[in-house]
Amino acid sequence: MIRFYNGRALEPAGVTENEVWVDGAAIAYVGPAREDMPAFDRQIDLGGDLLIPGFKDAHTHSGMTFLRSAADDLPLHQWLEKQVFPAEAKLTPESTGAFVKVAFLEYLANGITACFDMYYHTDEIARIARDWGFRTVLCGSFTAGNDWSELYDFYEHYNRDFGPMVSAQLGFHAEYTTNREALEYLAKVCHELKAPVWCHNSETVSEVRDCVARHGMTPTKLFDTLGLYDYGGGGYHCIYMTGEDMDIFARRGLTAVINACSNGKLASGFFPLREAMEKGVHLAVGTDGPASNNALDMFREMYLINILAKLRQSDAAAGDPALILDAAVSGGARAMGLGDCDAVVPGKQADLVRIDMHRPNMRPENNVVKNLVYSGDPSNVRMTMIAGKVLYEDGEFFVGEDPETVYRTAEKYARAIREG
Amino acid sequence: MIRFYNGRALEPAGVTENEVWVDGAAIAYVGPAREDMPAFDRQIDLGGDLLIPGFKDAHTHSGMTFLRSAADDLPLHQWLEKQVFPAEAKLTPESTGAFVKVAFLEYLANGITACFDMYYHTDEIARIARDWGFRTVLCGSFTAGNDWSELYDFYEHYNRDFGPMVSAQLGFHAEYTTNREALEYLAKVCHELKAPVWCHNSETVSEVRDCVARHGMTPTKLFDTLGLYDYGGGGYHCIYMTGEDMDIFARRGLTAVINACSNGKLASGFFPLREAMEKGVHLAVGTDGPASNNALDMFREMYLINILAKLRQSDAAAGDPALILDAAVSGGARAMGLGDCDAVVPGKQADLVRIDMHRPNMRPENNVVKNLVYSGDPSNVRMTMIAGKVLYEDGEFFVGEDPETVYRTAEKYARAIREG
Repeated sequence: MIRFYNGRALEPAGVTENEVWVDGAAIAYVGPAREDMPAFDRQIDLGGDLLIPGFKDAHTHSGMTFLRSAADDLPLHQWLEKQVFPAEAKLTPESTGAFVKVAFLEYLANGITACFDMYYHTDEIARIARDWGFRTVLCGSFTAGNDWSELYDFYEHYNRDFGPMVSAQLGFHAEYTTNREALEYLAKVCHELKAPVWCHNSETVSEVRDCVARHGMTPTKLFDTLGLYDYGGGGYHCIYMTGEDMDIFARRGLTAVINACSNGKLASGFFPLREAMEKGVHLAVGTDGPASNNALDMFREMYLINILAKLRQSDAAAGDPALILDAAVSGGARAMGLGDCDAVVPGKQADLVRIDMHRPNMRPENNVVKNLVYSGDPSNVRMTMIAGKVLYEDGEFFVGEDPETVYRTAEKYARAIREG
Repeated sequence: MIRFYNGRALEPAGVTENEVWVDGAAIAYVGPAREDMPAFDRQIDLGGDLLIPGFKDAHTHSGMTFLRSAADDLPLHQWLEKQVFPAEAKLTPESTGAFVKVAFLEYLANGITACFDMYYHTDEIARIARDWGFRTVLCGSFTAGNDWSELYDFYEHYNRDFGPMVSAQLGFHAEYTTNREALEYLAKVCHELKAPVWCHNSETVSEVRDCVARHGMTPTKLFDTLGLYDYGGGGYHCIYMTGEDMDIFARRGLTAVINACSNGKLASGFFPLREAMEKGVHLAVGTDGPASNNALDMFREMYLINILAKLRQSDAAAGDPALILDAAVSGGARAMGLGDCDAVVPGKQADLVRIDMHRPNMRPENNVVKNLVYSGDPSNVRMTMIAGKVLYEDGEFFVGEDPETVYRTAEKYARAIREG
């Protein structure tokens, strides 16, 4: 058992001075110090630091680290077709695994305890997630080129074969890379499995315009009409949603995953935060892949979501730091089917991050939540624990592999793809 | 003498594998390893890390750390009048000094080696800058309420009495807090001293509109007409500059200091980067004060400047990471009168930062400069050296004061102001 004491915890009701005890993979106790203490394997003196539920990166493509800083400064569709797709065609399971490991290290260093990953060579990703103990939810990235009957196998395989760190959600890439027949088939699958469905949705103006031209309705309306949302799910990006789209999201309890940094870097646009808040749409936060971001940093996402809301509305009062922090730690968990990883509450999984409150950017402490959102950064992450295991602490990784070997291997494969 | 070896250096022509030797306050040698090596006091194995010139925070109000997360989410003029000015009225030299120390720690932890500070109780700031060895350029923040004949004394005093770490530039708060008579007087002073002049300029639409109503011209045109720019200088923010204003800046070699995070948080607007680049306006980067940002983090500034340029122009190709990095490390130095602190070049001041290239956000190294701008963050700062002295290294500060004492004192004064 591990005891965190002499610090604070971000609990559902706010910041408290409670201790947190972790037994195996789960949180065993949250409360004041007690006389009847068990024998602890480790006692961690927080020295005033703050324990928070880990960040959930609710939309990413971890394997894309190889394109970090290699394919910048192009609009989405050019970027996909000229830079991303040709480079991705060269990926193998081995190289993808090497790139995923870099992303997993970055998640851990930045306090991210789970990712909602959409990429290729998923067996390799699942294997690394299992071996390292990094909580990974795989989302199908099916396009028109796939055999969609494999959806069943994808869903069963990853929910069954890789242990508790790996799970799967039904998903496809986006409306513009599929067709109606495939979507109708997916509707059948999601009804049989009673499973939520995920995809990129309304990321660009042209995506929505072309969908309306093809189907006479927006992507959200189309998916809803086909029954894809009958068991929940949601969309990534969700920038160009109409009021009716928002109503569908709100009515069905779907989650809009905000990807502010990626939407900025690709000049895609601004997430309509005010409208989503007014309609009570569930929110989560994702980094998107490292090719379009380029960091996997949820502090930056939270900051930017609020800043872009203010700029979009020309209103400094726009945005809501507490709401966005909740979306980043809890909203993502619920969206990803990780409802037991969303909070510092006894019985929940011990997916915890120690925030260093002794860095100057956290002082003075006028408002700890606002400090996290408006001035926090990865240098404030002292420890990242997943399912009760410390995987990162004070600059060191505990994943069973030397980071330098991970970097060297990734550099080798990245060079080969660049030069090949 | 200190030797940095086995790493890389960001030199004016790009990233090299050269060694850097530091003798006293200055860089003594930049080049390959040599047989005729002097006796070194310390040899630092960079292990592949990168030495860059320190970031220059070209516009800040360091003492405002006490309002971090305390006065958020209000528009500029309301924010100033309802939150900032009433709280600032309670400041004393002692409390201001306590708050400035928090900012100085944050600069050091984030790789910032000099700041262009505009605030009150400047003797206290200068004393701390001198004692800690933190390079500080004080800019006058005169308003209509000041006795402007003190401009001479301000300029002479801070350029003379506090040693090499402290200097001063002529400045005033902004057009909207002064009057024509004072500006005419300042013109006389700047001509006598042959000195550049600085102020907040064109930060909001209303500021420019009101100036035009009062004076029949924009702030930039007014200042130029009065002769305030005859010896250079520039402006902070510079969002709502006209084409003619930009021409004045370009013709006179003035510097526009970009404050993207502050402009976003106060919903002030977007810096016109494309127009400034087209006209060849000199650029620098500033955080603005920690009340309106809320971090003192030049990585975030560089990132946001590029992201906001892309969003403003709806063009993912907008922005220029290399140009903005140069503005952040060298442009600021030149603007602040620190032309000898701008580059990794023999003879220049050793104001250097060691960037950790072994954090996952820096890998793979497809493009080191883009990695710095698009995925770098304060966790990549391993060491900050000013004038040849290591003031921050691996989480520890070497400023002659315990950070915990600094935090405790700042918290005490912040609480007193909040509750007083």
